Amino acid sequence: MSTAPAPWVRLVVLPTPTIKNNTADADRLVAALAQALPAETVDIEFGIDLLRQLPALVRESGYRLRCTLFRERDRWMLTGISGADDIRTVAGLAVDLGTTRVVLRLIDLVNGAALAEQAFDNPQSDVGPDVLTRIHHADTPAGLRHLNALIINGLNRAIDTICRTAGLQPRDISALTIAGNTCMTHLFLGLEPRWIIREPYIPVVNRPGVLRASDLGIQVSPFARALVFPNIGSYFGGDLIAGILFSKLHRRRDTAILVDVGTNAEVVLGNRDWLIGCAGAAGPALESGVTRMGMLAGPGVVDRVSIDPATGAFDIHTIAEKTPRGICGSGVIDLAAQLFLSGMIDLRGKLIPARCGGRLEVIDDVRHLVVVPAEQSATGENLTISQADLDSLIRSKAAMYTILETLAMTVGLNLNELGAFYVAGTFGCFINPRSAIAIGMLPDLPLERYVPIGNSSLEGAALALTSASAIDEIDHIRDRITYLELNVNQDFMNRFSAAKFLPHTDVGRFPSVKQG
Amino acid sequence: MSTAPAPWVRLVVLPTPTIKNNTADADRLVAALAQALPAETVDIEFGIDLLRQLPALVRESGYRLRCTLFRERDRWMLTGISGADDIRTVAGLAVDLGTTRVVLRLIDLVNGAALAEQAFDNPQSDVGPDVLTRIHHADTPAGLRHLNALIINGLNRAIDTICRTAGLQPRDISALTIAGNTCMTHLFLGLEPRWIIREPYIPVVNRPGVLRASDLGIQVSPFARALVFPNIGSYFGGDLIAGILFSKLHRRRDTAILVDVGTNAEVVLGNRDWLIGCAGAAGPALESGVTRMGMLAGPGVVDRVSIDPATGAFDIHTIAEKTPRGICGSGVIDLAAQLFLSGMIDLRGKLIPARCGGRLEVIDDVRHLVVVPAEQSATGENLTISQADLDSLIRSKAAMYTILETLAMTVGLNLNELGAFYVAGTFGCFINPRSAIAIGMLPDLPLERYVPIGNSSLEGAALALTSASAIDEIDHIRDRITYLELNVNQDFMNRFSAAKFLPHTDVGRFPSVKQG
Repeated sequence: MSTAPAPWVRLVVLPTPTIKNNTADADRLVAALAQALPAETVDIEFGIDLLRQLPALVRESGYRLRCTLFRERDRWMLTGISGADDIRTVAGLAVDLGTTRVVLRLIDLVNGAALAEQAFDNPQSDVGPDVLTRIHHADTPAGLRHLNALIINGLNRAIDTICRTAGLQPRDISALTIAGNTCMTHLFLGLEPRWIIREPYIPVVNRPGVLRASDLGIQVSPFARALVFPNIGSYFGGDLIAGILFSKLHRRRDTAILVDVGTNAEVVLGNRDWLIGCAGAAGPALESGVTRMGMLAGPGVVDRVSIDPATGAFDIHTIAEKTPRGICGSGVIDLAAQLFLSGMIDLRGKLIPARCGGRLEVIDDVRHLVVVPAEQSATGENLTISQADLDSLIRSKAAMYTILETLAMTVGLNLNELGAFYVAGTFGCFINPRSAIAIGMLPDLPLERYVPIGNSSLEGAALALTSASAIDEIDHIRDRITYLELNVNQDFMNRFSAAKFLPHTDVGRFPSVKQG
Repeated sequence: MSTAPAPWVRLVVLPTPTIKNNTADADRLVAALAQALPAETVDIEFGIDLLRQLPALVRESGYRLRCTLFRERDRWMLTGISGADDIRTVAGLAVDLGTTRVVLRLIDLVNGAALAEQAFDNPQSDVGPDVLTRIHHADTPAGLRHLNALIINGLNRAIDTICRTAGLQPRDISALTIAGNTCMTHLFLGLEPRWIIREPYIPVVNRPGVLRASDLGIQVSPFARALVFPNIGSYFGGDLIAGILFSKLHRRRDTAILVDVGTNAEVVLGNRDWLIGCAGAAGPALESGVTRMGMLAGPGVVDRVSIDPATGAFDIHTIAEKTPRGICGSGVIDLAAQLFLSGMIDLRGKLIPARCGGRLEVIDDVRHLVVVPAEQSATGENLTISQADLDSLIRSKAAMYTILETLAMTVGLNLNELGAFYVAGTFGCFINPRSAIAIGMLPDLPLERYVPIGNSSLEGAALALTSASAIDEIDHIRDRITYLELNVNQDFMNRFSAAKFLPHTDVGRFPSVKQG
């Protein structure tokens, strides 16, 4: 990949006006910038407010200016001017606009360095934890304005903090990039999300493009521009486009896959010639939620489990090695894999009482397995996983695998042929691919092909601020993706049923998995 | 010329969303508009505020919309949307931004009809009557902001009034076109005019382009755009570009000339292949000002004079036939021509006492000619013209002729070859070409070639709102004009001296002029 830094900050020297060369200040600046910018530049755009500063500034600075720019395709927008000897930081802000969590990274636009990072809970969670609740709230009187104000105010507060952390001011930020799912993007822009969830699932906008930050209520430089990542329809958001951008899936010769598991599983398969994506409900059990002890990753949350097949002894690891208080998605997968490999559950995922010994409890006629006994847990109660939790996990893993399989089948590809398997998000960071393979959730690829790529939405947004080529690639990715509407037909259901076994009805697909 | 109405209001029918066609509302609208707009359209631009109205509107209107547009080159900007059955007027406002007087015309953008016209004195006149005083005032603390606020507030008041007159609201205005000289344009935009009048005479901007009206503080539709006519350097303003647009000089096969006389004389010579322009100080005596009785045209102002060569009797005509109270530029030219033709002044413009009889008065050693005796004047005093006034007029007319001659010489043309002579402004409406020829101010062309074109700045601004092609021609004109810097060298001074005679040292140039 190109490592050319983004060309947002340019020093230009304007020719001094003479009677022979007496064009306007603005023309003089545009001509100098045009020489510094790519030949295909169509337009260099000024806000009237910047124009008002220009005449005094060019003369005070001896016709040597530092210009801050941003662009949309071949249209460059001037976002700041000062004298060439100005050494104040020119900052950009990358935003991962998550449903649950919003993450900001402040970036030095001259050298691409990260200056600070900041995260906060999406304040819209007060209205509802999920997209659906929020969309319904947006339908109530002033509901949309309320949700929009929550996120905008939250961002403005976080911008204040992150700037203070880095010793900067919000007005030092001249460019923003924002990646979120289609609903979060709509609420951020103050656009009615109502039709996103109603057949035939229509967003208001797919390509919000580059907007004035001030038009959005974002309190940064008054001249700042904000690139809002495009989405492809209602269920394939800008966060995933940012993820593809960061993974570089779209530049690979061989075919690879990118999976982002949140409430939905979003999957993109492709290479430098084509990309195909889909999204499906594979989620809750994988992210957290379904198990009574389930929670998002955090200190004290069980993220790794191993079971000695001989003794049945549990070895529990928690994040930050705190006393256990719950279990996250990757922990559940690890647990299920270990239960299966040690023979405590069968190939349908059912607890085998004879193998569970004293760890088995029956509560309200439902079998539970004690993962952490009360005396070792932070809550003072047993941390358990129920048969229902396990059933739910099996359905989720089956859905996940079926989505992957369906996507691969659509292009006539065998999942084993994948050159790389990118796993995005917190899920991707904590998941043990060996366990995911063991339960047949992910294909049985050599482990080195599994690449956790972290918060790829944030990383992609940051890339659009730091790489010269990235901003072109967003459109390229957007225009190249075919969105596969997952048609849950009989064929899909048959594959889904076959995937509801551990690891799969067709065990030949998972040669590496050997039950103990 | 093309009479196609401007395409600013479009009815579009969007395909209804289905699962097969589930693109975003905005994409749906852009696709429908793209079909309705010229093929070379590069971009269709939405403000976020309009986007916020879109989803509810498309559904309420059954996917049939009325769209209001404006454009800059191949970029179209949506300035309003409503249901297709909306019959409210969509209005545009053309503004002639004069140093002294500002004139507005409200236009129905559907059919191009003029709805109302309104004029007001430029409130900046309180600061100073001329461009120079205002530029100096702009240099004082908050001076620029003050001048900007004066004109913006003045415009907003006038917009209120003109809308009331037409039974509309300011928010019904979705497009504005503004034509003014370079300084007025700068003050209107809040741009520092300081360097316009200082060598090497640099404006801040030559092509302000199309701006959001709201960015300029103009209170019309929040989505309205304003096209500000471009200027060519400091002394050749957007008002003249608008004048050329209206005169259609730039479309003629044969060569013609356009003259706009205000404080400066602005002259453009050309045809459809080339245009050359210059501006020079020829003005004050021609507009008003230098004579003690001089004033701008208005009721009671002498606009026509004839003198019986046999009896020396004066026949005075005033505007609106009120009792005389002063004389305007065209009146002075008429008077001078008649004085010359009747033998009361000689070929140097000097009063001949023997021929002036009782009309001659000597005040402070300076000869004066009584044009209207006290008993017939509205002021109760003699309205007189002094020898000094006449000398000043001769200098002005000589400057005017020399500018015309210099411009024609530059392109190797004889002034007699002009196919048309457009005279803009109030001056052009009232001037008697026969008199202007008699004193050798204008070339001795057949009278029918003199075409008064009125307020061509306003008319050009209006044309940019009503004609489909006009908006393209503004850039065409702007880019085609060569600006001739009038170099007042010895050669110019020689021609100027030769032109200081009535009609000219070379009387052969004025065969139609016969002194009585």
